[in-house]
Amino acid sequence: MRYQLYYWPSIPGRGEFVRLALEHAGADYVDVARRPGGMATLERFLKDRSTKQPPFAPPFLKAGKLVIGQTANILLYLGARHGLAPGTEAGRLWIHQLQLTIADWLVEVHDTHHPISAGLYYEEQKREAKRRAADFVTQRLPKFLGYFEEVLRCNPARSGWLAGSSITYADLSLFQMAAGLRYAFPRAMAKRERRYPRVAALHERVAARPRIAAYLASKRRIAFNQDGIFRHYPELDRS
Amino acid sequence: MRYQLYYWPSIPGRGEFVRLALEHAGADYVDVARRPGGMATLERFLKDRSTKQPPFAPPFLKAGKLVIGQTANILLYLGARHGLAPGTEAGRLWIHQLQLTIADWLVEVHDTHHPISAGLYYEEQKREAKRRAADFVTQRLPKFLGYFEEVLRCNPARSGWLAGSSITYADLSLFQMAAGLRYAFPRAMAKRERRYPRVAALHERVAARPRIAAYLASKRRIAFNQDGIFRHYPELDRS
Repeated sequence: MRYQLYYWPSIPGRGEFVRLALEHAGADYVDVARRPGGMATLERFLKDRSTKQPPFAPPFLKAGKLVIGQTANILLYLGARHGLAPGTEAGRLWIHQLQLTIADWLVEVHDTHHPISAGLYYEEQKREAKRRAADFVTQRLPKFLGYFEEVLRCNPARSGWLAGSSITYADLSLFQMAAGLRYAFPRAMAKRERRYPRVAALHERVAARPRIAAYLASKRRIAFNQDGIFRHYPELDRS
Repeated sequence: MRYQLYYWPSIPGRGEFVRLALEHAGADYVDVARRPGGMATLERFLKDRSTKQPPFAPPFLKAGKLVIGQTANILLYLGARHGLAPGTEAGRLWIHQLQLTIADWLVEVHDTHHPISAGLYYEEQKREAKRRAADFVTQRLPKFLGYFEEVLRCNPARSGWLAGSSITYADLSLFQMAAGLRYAFPRAMAKRERRYPRVAALHERVAARPRIAAYLASKRRIAFNQDGIFRHYPELDRS
């Protein structure tokens, strides 16, 4: 089956968490909106009032007749099919729990530069962004990094992965968080990341997985940029 | 099996979405932190460094040996066991997708009064809260309400529920959203809610379900209050 991923074509955003899973799985997929005419296809779908199960927003994944929305939900589906989640129910719930915590974290990253409204420009909420980003860097970033460091430490398999002895979609997502945070907050991360050696090591290990390494070196990987969720504004990045 | 729900004892918060599912299912559960000495039990669990799969934050549910965190993840688990989700994989993914959209919405409700930091008092971020709440009421509230109205309209079963012909955990959660929004933003909701008759009707139908009606009339139901996610600050509520 050829999957069809629908997501904005110019940012890594939430779509990237899905792309990483598809790429690691070696799955056959089309990144719809990055093809010629693809944005029109995406927008047509979003406006189609005959859709029986409309997604709230991209990303969504077409898998045969299924249309699956919400990043973590897409990964729940893909994880079970492509060996990117444990085989037991308890294991699947645990990985999904971690993914949902990453989703919460990602919202907080977004809101560092858009604390008032996603419908306004950064410059229109810059003062508020400075306050929110200061709180994020000093309070929330250590809390989330510390949490995942602890999860890695607690894994009885001592594999360096979040659960059990194999990589899961949550590991791929944690890689993306670390990468994005280094882009957005280089000073803060340079100062703090050494306290979370397991998270940093996981980032390196994911980047070295053959299919992920090939993907990262390809044109399919969209670089972090100033339209995305992870943005680098020097004035928001404190050490 | 007797479930153990761990959540803060004095607010409806995220725990309420789990309580509604447990109550509708007639499940046997203990609301741990609301028992004598329960807060100490909750805090002891959060500080326990020997926990192999630590939750990031309450709520979490103990179900036998399982400890399940993240509200939507708990509902994914309960839904499959208590007839609160469709029997097909496609149906389960759809309901979970809706639940995750409700989770996103709930974060935005919280951030109307805490747009800068959950670690600061409302009064310390009141100016920013006014800006964020204005955007929420005029832009986001209609978008989310309109989305769920559309989902109810699109359900081929025309049952008045979000999917198929039976109530699911997402219906219970949408009820809680409508109830909370009426508490927090009475003026805004009075003006706008009539445009979303299916959402309003769902609220009434859920409230009338026998077990939910009994629950809402009981002391187990925690009233909305000014420490919770849904808070009523008149200055944030515009019509």
